[in-house]
Amino acid sequence: MKEQEATPERFAVTGRNRLRRRHDRGHYDHEAVYAVLDAGFMCHVAYVIDGQPYCTPTIHWREDDWLYWHGSSASRMLRNLKGGTPVCLTVSHLDGLVLARSGFNHSANYRSAICFGTARIIDDPDEKAKALLGVVDRFYPGRAVELRRTHAQESKATMVIGMRIEEASAKVRAAGVGDDEEDYGHPVWAGVIPVQTVIGTAEPCPRLLPGMGKTAGLAGYRAGRRLDEALLEAQELYESETETAEPVS
Amino acid sequence: MKEQEATPERFAVTGRNRLRRRHDRGHYDHEAVYAVLDAGFMCHVAYVIDGQPYCTPTIHWREDDWLYWHGSSASRMLRNLKGGTPVCLTVSHLDGLVLARSGFNHSANYRSAICFGTARIIDDPDEKAKALLGVVDRFYPGRAVELRRTHAQESKATMVIGMRIEEASAKVRAAGVGDDEEDYGHPVWAGVIPVQTVIGTAEPCPRLLPGMGKTAGLAGYRAGRRLDEALLEAQELYESETETAEPVS
Repeated sequence: MKEQEATPERFAVTGRNRLRRRHDRGHYDHEAVYAVLDAGFMCHVAYVIDGQPYCTPTIHWREDDWLYWHGSSASRMLRNLKGGTPVCLTVSHLDGLVLARSGFNHSANYRSAICFGTARIIDDPDEKAKALLGVVDRFYPGRAVELRRTHAQESKATMVIGMRIEEASAKVRAAGVGDDEEDYGHPVWAGVIPVQTVIGTAEPCPRLLPGMGKTAGLAGYRAGRRLDEALLEAQELYESETETAEPVS
Repeated sequence: MKEQEATPERFAVTGRNRLRRRHDRGHYDHEAVYAVLDAGFMCHVAYVIDGQPYCTPTIHWREDDWLYWHGSSASRMLRNLKGGTPVCLTVSHLDGLVLARSGFNHSANYRSAICFGTARIIDDPDEKAKALLGVVDRFYPGRAVELRRTHAQESKATMVIGMRIEEASAKVRAAGVGDDEEDYGHPVWAGVIPVQTVIGTAEPCPRLLPGMGKTAGLAGYRAGRRLDEALLEAQELYESETETAEPVS
């Protein structure tokens, strides 16, 4: 894959996000990248302080080509950087262990998205208030309005960081064992051991008010379902409600 | 938590790994950090090239206080850095979604370990050969010897990166909803939606030789089991076999 300009459907391919290895597994279109991002609850954010890299797990959410996450130790640094700081935000899903007939051909099935951008503290009050409602509704459709309203000091104590995705790539392996042709006769078990992240049985708060059932917006998080499917569905619901509320003229 | 010297059981606490927020969730002892690392198949490695942070998902494995992983785009940079480069390697597990009665008290149950060190290419032939067997046996006890032997050019084509863990911390949240006292009367469902990463039914390679069943070392990866439990068990098996083979006098 050569370097390319961005198009309305695809991120630019540059020296920063171009895949060096396994081009066949790479994707640069928004759809592929968003599918990985939206299927995940947690991400890892890499940033640099005084030359030292940090890799912080946190919760992320997406609005179009913007990513948001909750403040981390990067926050201290960001306070002093009006222009923002370069970060790399990555979401990964493990889908299977791939056991081949040689050590070299062992692998994993996975989906990952790597996003580059410039992180900024979201401190505009309206933008921040919208983000704090958005993070609830994006995961739990329609929930924000049901909650006790956010106190001013809570909003102040919450750090929201955001960045526009400048460049990104997705990488996916979803295949069986790929052995060298001459190795298929080697006498050892080979195959894929699939892995899924699944939702368990909800544990209601012991102090729940009597008769307080789960609301319709939580129906997607049913026991036994794949978490990534529930998260993708919730994002779709969130986007369709946002569109209804704020039509783009 | 103040800064502290390392002890035989605990990593040093410094400005780099000290938890800034939620000290109550933090741990610096080897046991807590290793429990998170060993329960994971994938990690995220953060490193810096020309001031730009990168966050790369990859497979990691541990030998005592050393971490190893397969080469990534960092490899190109590392070739030119004889002294190694600072990295941060993080492993995270999502254990549950925590739905509170206010947006502010929404949270997640999780386990994470953040490790700092100086990454180096493992190019000593003996150390590299040992690592390439180790990565198979660490995940699949006893499997390396069953495989087609590694060709010299495969070993050459595989980049192994290693670092001693200089500093690390683990962070764990494993609790129910923590609402403000005055919010428990708010009429909304609250609770924990647990999440687990589980093993599915193995999919044998369609070209498996007749009668080629899974070997004893793969018994831990049975369908329905939690992946983290299987990985912890495999690491224990690996360590006990390594100790038998190479007694520390």
